[in-house]
Amino acid sequence: MSASQADYFEDIEIGRSVENGRHTPTRDEIIAFARQWDPQPFHLDEAAGRASPMGGLSASSCHTYSISSLIYSRSEEKLKTAAMLGLEMRFPSAVRPDEELALFERFTAKRVSSSRPQYGVVSSETVMENERGEAVLIMRSNYLVERRPTPGGR
Amino acid sequence: MSASQADYFEDIEIGRSVENGRHTPTRDEIIAFARQWDPQPFHLDEAAGRASPMGGLSASSCHTYSISSLIYSRSEEKLKTAAMLGLEMRFPSAVRPDEELALFERFTAKRVSSSRPQYGVVSSETVMENERGEAVLIMRSNYLVERRPTPGGR
Repeated sequence: MSASQADYFEDIEIGRSVENGRHTPTRDEIIAFARQWDPQPFHLDEAAGRASPMGGLSASSCHTYSISSLIYSRSEEKLKTAAMLGLEMRFPSAVRPDEELALFERFTAKRVSSSRPQYGVVSSETVMENERGEAVLIMRSNYLVERRPTPGGR
Repeated sequence: MSASQADYFEDIEIGRSVENGRHTPTRDEIIAFARQWDPQPFHLDEAAGRASPMGGLSASSCHTYSISSLIYSRSEEKLKTAAMLGLEMRFPSAVRPDEELALFERFTAKRVSSSRPQYGVVSSETVMENERGEAVLIMRSNYLVERRPTPGGR
């Protein structure tokens, strides 16, 4: 939970790829999340899932995004993130129960924030893949990261 | 939870705006969601929130997206949605504890799916606003909606 081990804006190497970690959503987790936030039949019931374009029970897109956040939160490759500005997501394949998902991030651009010069704006491409190497989430995001305090200043 | 009252692809009027409903996330809800899915200090603790660019405790972007889904799930303006294909989100203002959020959706385009002709692809712009009329979420999304079964066919 502490960001004390995390990297500053200055530490980010554009073009570098990192693996952030893995998570396996269970059937219970998929259904519990959907019941609370996105109670569509194909996220709650196997038969309804089979009748849907996903062809089986699948996780909500909200859950899929939240899983990427959960994996990131446990990563050893964390940044001193300060705010999510915006993102694009695509969901090429469905998230199935009991399939391990792996999260990968590649930094594509960074610049100092013009409105908040103590932060940088970082752009990255994130892919979350299942065990068969199918992308279940492709995300481009822009977020704020703390800049390293200058020596002697605060 | 049932989609039986929901509209088909054919019922969607491009350009029409609907209000989907409202939800007020409490402080406990914001912290509980963040603890589970996005445990960054500024989503968990008021002092850490004040020190962040958001200037106070704020909901995770995953939670913000999930709230939009929750409001939609309770709406009387539902469609026979079948899958989320992709979306863009921006978070212009922070989601604060105990502020009521209202969700509005405007349909911008629709077409029959070429790969799945029993579904249509619908594009919409969604805005979620707080009590001061500030947008906390601006979303453009593309999703599948069931087409009305043809008479005599299935």
